[in-house]
Amino acid sequence: MKDKTKIGVIGFGHRGLGLCKLLALMPDVEVVGVCDLCEDKAIAGAEAVKAAAGYAPIVTTDYRRLLEMKEIEAIVTPSAWRAHVQICLDSMEAGKYVATEVGGASTLDQCYDLVKTSKRTGMPCMMLENCCYGRTEMTVLNMVKQGLFGEPVYAAGGYCHDLRDEIGYGKENRHYRLRNFLNRNAELYPTHELGPIAKWLNINRGNRMLSLVSMASKAAGMEHYVKTQMPADHELQGKKFNQGDVVITLIKCARGETILLNHGTTLPRPYTRMNILQGTKGIYSEDKNQGIYIDGVSEHEKWQTLDDYYEKYEHPLWKYYREEGVKSGHGGMDYLVLRAFIESVQNKTDTPIDVYDTASWMAIGPLSEESISMGGHPVAIPDFTNGMWLEREPITRGKYCLDEICEEYIK
Amino acid sequence: MKDKTKIGVIGFGHRGLGLCKLLALMPDVEVVGVCDLCEDKAIAGAEAVKAAAGYAPIVTTDYRRLLEMKEIEAIVTPSAWRAHVQICLDSMEAGKYVATEVGGASTLDQCYDLVKTSKRTGMPCMMLENCCYGRTEMTVLNMVKQGLFGEPVYAAGGYCHDLRDEIGYGKENRHYRLRNFLNRNAELYPTHELGPIAKWLNINRGNRMLSLVSMASKAAGMEHYVKTQMPADHELQGKKFNQGDVVITLIKCARGETILLNHGTTLPRPYTRMNILQGTKGIYSEDKNQGIYIDGVSEHEKWQTLDDYYEKYEHPLWKYYREEGVKSGHGGMDYLVLRAFIESVQNKTDTPIDVYDTASWMAIGPLSEESISMGGHPVAIPDFTNGMWLEREPITRGKYCLDEICEEYIK
Repeated sequence: MKDKTKIGVIGFGHRGLGLCKLLALMPDVEVVGVCDLCEDKAIAGAEAVKAAAGYAPIVTTDYRRLLEMKEIEAIVTPSAWRAHVQICLDSMEAGKYVATEVGGASTLDQCYDLVKTSKRTGMPCMMLENCCYGRTEMTVLNMVKQGLFGEPVYAAGGYCHDLRDEIGYGKENRHYRLRNFLNRNAELYPTHELGPIAKWLNINRGNRMLSLVSMASKAAGMEHYVKTQMPADHELQGKKFNQGDVVITLIKCARGETILLNHGTTLPRPYTRMNILQGTKGIYSEDKNQGIYIDGVSEHEKWQTLDDYYEKYEHPLWKYYREEGVKSGHGGMDYLVLRAFIESVQNKTDTPIDVYDTASWMAIGPLSEESISMGGHPVAIPDFTNGMWLEREPITRGKYCLDEICEEYIK
Repeated sequence: MKDKTKIGVIGFGHRGLGLCKLLALMPDVEVVGVCDLCEDKAIAGAEAVKAAAGYAPIVTTDYRRLLEMKEIEAIVTPSAWRAHVQICLDSMEAGKYVATEVGGASTLDQCYDLVKTSKRTGMPCMMLENCCYGRTEMTVLNMVKQGLFGEPVYAAGGYCHDLRDEIGYGKENRHYRLRNFLNRNAELYPTHELGPIAKWLNINRGNRMLSLVSMASKAAGMEHYVKTQMPADHELQGKKFNQGDVVITLIKCARGETILLNHGTTLPRPYTRMNILQGTKGIYSEDKNQGIYIDGVSEHEKWQTLDDYYEKYEHPLWKYYREEGVKSGHGGMDYLVLRAFIESVQNKTDTPIDVYDTASWMAIGPLSEESISMGGHPVAIPDFTNGMWLEREPITRGKYCLDEICEEYIK
């Protein structure tokens, strides 16, 4: 197994099991160790590796044991939101590449720590924002880079997902959304939409996010749900929830674009990420049946759909991927984002979602919380690049590049 | 013609002609006088009345002449945005009911003037917000009042309308959007979506709008349009536009709901008012093909459409209207909003969209301008009712009532 990339996986909730299985199935990856605070979960992770790849990784409840293992080159952590940052920091200090599942930071201080530690240790830190590698999002990225929409002006997205039942029986004890819903009021989960948008708009490479305002609706969804759909003696009966059901965040960018984020996980509705991209020449809108309208091309006032554009504009990575055979996991994007990380480790390059992306996307959580708590007051978004965004040019090479379309690297 | 309601119409742009024709065709209305600053337009108005109803109204370029006519009971003014308020004030001072076409105020002071003048003179002032009487909007109103969506939490809407060609040849000289686009940066046209939403949420009757924040994208659409689609020697070449292409406004209400408004008239895209209403039991979304999702009723994660609900929830006014025969004008809603005004004049009652509604909806324009100019700073929305919103109960009678469903008055 000498040529395999040796990794450790930390955190085995439902998500961890799925990601670890995808990793274990990769012929050039060895999952050397698995860890979870709960031993039963760590063991389940080891069993998943065994079932997928035929070998048994080391099992531990203390992730520092994995960090001490010299042969481990990289850590992947699909842990709980609140554990992400410390695991990332400790992994970088141990000289390892680290990739974290999505979720916001708790404080700005954590975001600064990520950036400073990465710079000092030279170790990359990548958020595994799978939606950056979604087929739709990458096709829109390709269209943006080819100028189909003209100059980008406005982007929107959301995480509109009815997650009320995550507090249901068998889920409430270990699930961290509940304590957020009870105690916080923020854009809790910005990156599924913000990640792709940030890449469309060259954030941290020639552009940056300057400031934001957030406003939260009342919190009525969970209390209604508990009252009408949970047993009368349930411990949540009568509990006051703090998290507004719909949180809207508006971000202003240095190049003049605005970004709208919609977080809504506590009201009944079908799922959407509601992506929108508007420019001087046209618009893409997910909620209009993946609608496309291009000035002078589309029939006046009529939506076309992305289906009309895939042949010409599908991202070359996805063309290749579909020919090769799409792997499972959220429509295939989980595999791609993991490969982007693994191949960066193998090539000893920075990751296509780098520590500045990771930190600035994670910062939206605590910043929105500040703005909401001050009645929608605008708050500044730190420039984690310390001015380097002015000179940092788009990356123009790499199979998994999200800055430019690098077709020649895709085989 | 003794029993006819005698009215004057002031302002004969394209919109004025259409509305005046609808009024002239009503058998119980006499358009006694028509006025426009441009005599040719006033004459065109008179000719429209003659063609529709067979009689010739008085023609003037000075609206004060109409206000001096004792037999005129009411004024309808589809004038330019900036003229609305003064005409309303003068009409009320002259002891006449007044109805104004939509559009924002320029300053808060104008909104206060409307309220104070109406109170002092006892004359109602109604904004002719036709979308309040749209079939879709009224059906959603009926659903809200019947509790289908549970407790309302969040509403959104927009005026997303590609109006770039309004500065084209033959349109630019008299059209007032251009000077706004060049000089202002605001939610210029909030009421087509805010009007219906305000009625869904009982604004000014048990609820009120407390504060807002607005953020504007860069202004790139018009400059691109002028550069690429206007002659090289056009006077607008090289002109800097101020109005952001996409202006988002977030409003917080006293009962905890939030409202999102989207103004976008300078980028290429198909039209939408993008109405959304979310409550503890479900959601309506115009952009999801007029989608409805009701908790425990709709199939999990699947949108139904409003078509599935019309039979049970269509507003009784629209059921009656469709049986009687829908009149032209934006799908029939122009006729309904005009009838709501005319029948209020005839019955000597207040109008279903009253001066508090008119003032508070118009105030969003200058307030958004303040917020944008201060980087998205929250600004307070005045309580034009001076505290009366706490006691002002929904109106529970009247054919055109927008506060409750008053089926017994609809014949």
